[in-house]
Amino acid sequence: MDLFEKLNTNLGPLGKHSELSEGYFTFPKLEGEIAPRMKFKGKDVLTWSLNNYLGLANHPDIRKADADAAAKWGAAYPMGARMMSGQTDLHEQLERELAEFVGKQSAYLLNYGYQGIMSVIDSILDRKDVVVYDSECHACIIDALRMHLGKRYVFPHNDIENCETQLKRATKLAAETGGGILVITEGVFGMTGDQGHLAEIVKLKEKYEFRLLVDDAHGFGTMGKTGAGTGEEQGVQDQIDLYFSTFAKSMASIGAFIAGDTNVIHFLKYNMRSQIYAKSLPMLLVEGALKRLEMLRTMPELKENLWKIVNALKSGLIEKGFSIGKSNSPVTPVVLNGTVGEAATLSKDLRENYSIFCSVVIYPVVPKDMIILRLIPTAVHTLEDVAETIAAFEAVKEKLTNGFYKSSALAVSFGE
Amino acid sequence: MDLFEKLNTNLGPLGKHSELSEGYFTFPKLEGEIAPRMKFKGKDVLTWSLNNYLGLANHPDIRKADADAAAKWGAAYPMGARMMSGQTDLHEQLERELAEFVGKQSAYLLNYGYQGIMSVIDSILDRKDVVVYDSECHACIIDALRMHLGKRYVFPHNDIENCETQLKRATKLAAETGGGILVITEGVFGMTGDQGHLAEIVKLKEKYEFRLLVDDAHGFGTMGKTGAGTGEEQGVQDQIDLYFSTFAKSMASIGAFIAGDTNVIHFLKYNMRSQIYAKSLPMLLVEGALKRLEMLRTMPELKENLWKIVNALKSGLIEKGFSIGKSNSPVTPVVLNGTVGEAATLSKDLRENYSIFCSVVIYPVVPKDMIILRLIPTAVHTLEDVAETIAAFEAVKEKLTNGFYKSSALAVSFGE
Repeated sequence: MDLFEKLNTNLGPLGKHSELSEGYFTFPKLEGEIAPRMKFKGKDVLTWSLNNYLGLANHPDIRKADADAAAKWGAAYPMGARMMSGQTDLHEQLERELAEFVGKQSAYLLNYGYQGIMSVIDSILDRKDVVVYDSECHACIIDALRMHLGKRYVFPHNDIENCETQLKRATKLAAETGGGILVITEGVFGMTGDQGHLAEIVKLKEKYEFRLLVDDAHGFGTMGKTGAGTGEEQGVQDQIDLYFSTFAKSMASIGAFIAGDTNVIHFLKYNMRSQIYAKSLPMLLVEGALKRLEMLRTMPELKENLWKIVNALKSGLIEKGFSIGKSNSPVTPVVLNGTVGEAATLSKDLRENYSIFCSVVIYPVVPKDMIILRLIPTAVHTLEDVAETIAAFEAVKEKLTNGFYKSSALAVSFGE
Repeated sequence: MDLFEKLNTNLGPLGKHSELSEGYFTFPKLEGEIAPRMKFKGKDVLTWSLNNYLGLANHPDIRKADADAAAKWGAAYPMGARMMSGQTDLHEQLERELAEFVGKQSAYLLNYGYQGIMSVIDSILDRKDVVVYDSECHACIIDALRMHLGKRYVFPHNDIENCETQLKRATKLAAETGGGILVITEGVFGMTGDQGHLAEIVKLKEKYEFRLLVDDAHGFGTMGKTGAGTGEEQGVQDQIDLYFSTFAKSMASIGAFIAGDTNVIHFLKYNMRSQIYAKSLPMLLVEGALKRLEMLRTMPELKENLWKIVNALKSGLIEKGFSIGKSNSPVTPVVLNGTVGEAATLSKDLRENYSIFCSVVIYPVVPKDMIILRLIPTAVHTLEDVAETIAAFEAVKEKLTNGFYKSSALAVSFGE
């Protein structure tokens, strides 16, 4: 049979709607400078879908730092993997500064977050080791576990009682295999906005022997007194054995890092396949990250502004009767009831008639009758943006409740 | 048992020598502008270890394009995955230009080559499908196959007879499972410099039904009449079903692309996990890649210069009695006999006393008594560089043959 035959008949859960969705619901183009107001199909929209938490993406000091770094280094330097020919003083400096900021002995840069965390997990595990992980861990963690030859036990999202059950099973199995246990969760879950129950997981260390890896992509820069993340927020940063964050959110760039004890980081730098066999993070991004980290450390007003917007948005939504699920981070999901078709129509109405652009999460990510409008507040949004958005949300919720989106001229059908 | 215990006692094949090697043999710093002459530990060295084949990394037009792009876009734009909020006109334009250049219907950009090709392979395979692949495929391909739940058959590097044996087995199995067959090889193998036997593999399509994926990281820009790669070189580009290249070599950047028939590329863009769930290639790198591709297309003298150096280096080495293995690409391995300790000492001698910096490949990558000095010629090397290098190689080969590196004061021992 032709390998490609199945690709024509099954485009996948997202691809099967591509004729209707592409350019609008999927692969939309947000144009202009990164800001709360951008252009979508030529019209200004108020945007709540970019993880630019601290507003650094388009901050003049960052824009200058990025431009200067590119002028100084170009995009090519250094060439080759860190281990072969891609090592520089500035990579090491950024690692020292990141380690210090997140309260760890050492850190190591990763050329991209997705493949980076895959190789972190891959390189510390052998087939004797057992993994216990949260069911809502990000795709990159799941892909890493797909390479793992040993056993893995999943616990339902943030269900710590079940986590303990899995730890018991893992402990029993590891005693047989002679392996160790790795627990993986996230600081802030990007879809639902609830924090991983790190403090409760850490408490289980009193009863079970394991190491804890936390992917804090959404918590780094946004959570904790200094912005050092969800571990700091929950007072357990020192109990996180491996702390990971991407630069793709608060840091408004690409690349990532892993931090932990020096001996572990030393092991990782010599054993992570995607880092040994692929190019170093470009210098211009390293210099850019140094500047971003400096601002993140020295300008607490960035995080204060973020939380002013987060709090206004959340309390405003709750006041108007909206459910924001279990969010206790900047990520703000607004949970509504409706079909996939209604979700699409509502989202179109929001964009066309209220000039609000946000991500919509539908089946199969959530149950069939659930719609989640996911809002990502940032430090550069204003209280007026919040008020405008809540008013629009009230209007579309009213329409949704009245069945308007079932029959509207706008109606988008996904062939349900 | 503590998960991390094993990391302290076994630092891995590369890590175990780290106390002796780090900063010199591993993680060396090459400083200054990317060029044949760079600084290593404060001294000028003639460098043969950067995959800057066409010399674009530091070309003034590229440096200007990179600086301008960063000034225009910063490093943050666009934010989010392509599918969510990271799509732009220029990403699409670059895809069209890449597809046209490599003679395919469509292309799709990948935010990083390593994770990108992993997701290409991952998304087109299900557990019914069977993979047949070359034993020397790059780590990223091996990592992709580690996620594959179906069967895979490996053939010894470039052994086409054995490849056919594996295809027979695969065909039999696929008939049972109802799956398809994917053959994976490379255009140019990065360690040995020999081309994958694409034409011979393609010929097997007459007898067996399979699709062919070629990783042409080292062939893109360097091979074929127009630089469109190893498929063009061997006259079989149209028989390559999926053509992959990174931007990390001839293009002197990061990022990558996959090209093929429109329906297949359409499927991939909706199903590659590392592309759906991670950030888009930054715009400044997209603009940079557009400029690089333009130069690659319109300045044949870049490739001509490269091959002038390649041919001079190879014929000069052969004339002096050196073996360059089976290389028929710019990658030039010089094969010598000696221990790991001798390899290290020789390499140190080359750097300290002859100011020549190149990569050394030793056990366990090659057999215990083999040393490979890997040279990467570029368009910006000169014939004088070639002459100087061959003279130095003659000198160190003489010392190696005489046993000098066993007893030299320079001797590096790796505790053999």
